[in-house]
Amino acid sequence: MDVFEVMETCRAMRYLKPDPVPREMIEQLVFYATRAPSPRNTQEWDFVIVTDEATKQRIGDVIGDRITARVASYPPPDNEADRRMNEGSLTLAQSLANAPVLILVCGPTDYPRGRPIEKWGWASLFPAAQNLMLAARALGLGSTLTTFNDHADSEIREWLELPDDVRIACMLPIGWPARDFGPVRRRPVDEVIHWERWQPDLRPQQGDIAPKD
Amino acid sequence: MDVFEVMETCRAMRYLKPDPVPREMIEQLVFYATRAPSPRNTQEWDFVIVTDEATKQRIGDVIGDRITARVASYPPPDNEADRRMNEGSLTLAQSLANAPVLILVCGPTDYPRGRPIEKWGWASLFPAAQNLMLAARALGLGSTLTTFNDHADSEIREWLELPDDVRIACMLPIGWPARDFGPVRRRPVDEVIHWERWQPDLRPQQGDIAPKD
Repeated sequence: MDVFEVMETCRAMRYLKPDPVPREMIEQLVFYATRAPSPRNTQEWDFVIVTDEATKQRIGDVIGDRITARVASYPPPDNEADRRMNEGSLTLAQSLANAPVLILVCGPTDYPRGRPIEKWGWASLFPAAQNLMLAARALGLGSTLTTFNDHADSEIREWLELPDDVRIACMLPIGWPARDFGPVRRRPVDEVIHWERWQPDLRPQQGDIAPKD
Repeated sequence: MDVFEVMETCRAMRYLKPDPVPREMIEQLVFYATRAPSPRNTQEWDFVIVTDEATKQRIGDVIGDRITARVASYPPPDNEADRRMNEGSLTLAQSLANAPVLILVCGPTDYPRGRPIEKWGWASLFPAAQNLMLAARALGLGSTLTTFNDHADSEIREWLELPDDVRIACMLPIGWPARDFGPVRRRPVDEVIHWERWQPDLRPQQGDIAPKD
């Protein structure tokens, strides 16, 4: 599948069918995730694949409760885009256990030579996650990049028996899409590109910036 | 171009020709970068494109000096992979000004609703950077994801007139490749995949983990 078409139609897929995903496809996703670059090619990434129903249910329950409480604490959305986004977050959080597969992208809490981990680690884990999602799209699988795991970090670490020196970057529910892939909606390039220096700040004000994905 | 071939051959391209890159191609790269997801589709990213020779030279000079000093401070490499990696870092740092284009991927220092910025921001900027590099590869352009900019953050911010509430995630030198694209070399999938839980730690010891990119 053409790379440009993949990127243009790689929507966050928050609605997934319960049908199982072949193990070989999961391995393919991890293969392509690991084609991403990493600082000094350290490749310090690990992928925990959860398909066990009971584990998914525990993860889904705790995150569903916490995201529901969080969204309830937001001010009421004053526009349609925010309303849809809240709804999408809730749907995703409350249906995590229904995804046939959860993939947790993990990395070490520190690096050789005492490099500052915070950004250096993310600089390899998030490109890998992006490759994984593009590969999923090309195979016809839906995915969403979420950091919901942060809301139940200690519980998930315990259930998955993660060592203390491993942290979770993000969690991707994966499955066959229950909605169509379609073009993502984004701000025009002119609004985010700056030639030679920052120049006038063209960033639109909050409220204009969140068309529906 | 097929998305899997793009990912498999998207090597860090540290050697670039000085030939100019059409403006339309740069706009295409930013277009595809912005197909990436972002938390709640906030799309809080900006791309500063530097082609001005004097600005590139200033950036290249300061980073070249600092990376050279940093690499000199490392213990001497005790294996070929580390030696090549050091050499690659030095070459890249010392030749930044020769790249026809430097793209700085930027984002806000904080987000609406007081979300913790540190990880949330990286969770959208690095996927965008990955999309940008894949699009470059598909167009035949070479790129490298570098965070060298961190070594001269205050200078670069001043020269590019970045507002205080904007930070730089990474800097990508872009240009026509002076080497062949080729398959990236990575650890086998079996070493980084964990089914259902962490299970025995299969991560190889340091020293085995950096085959040449």
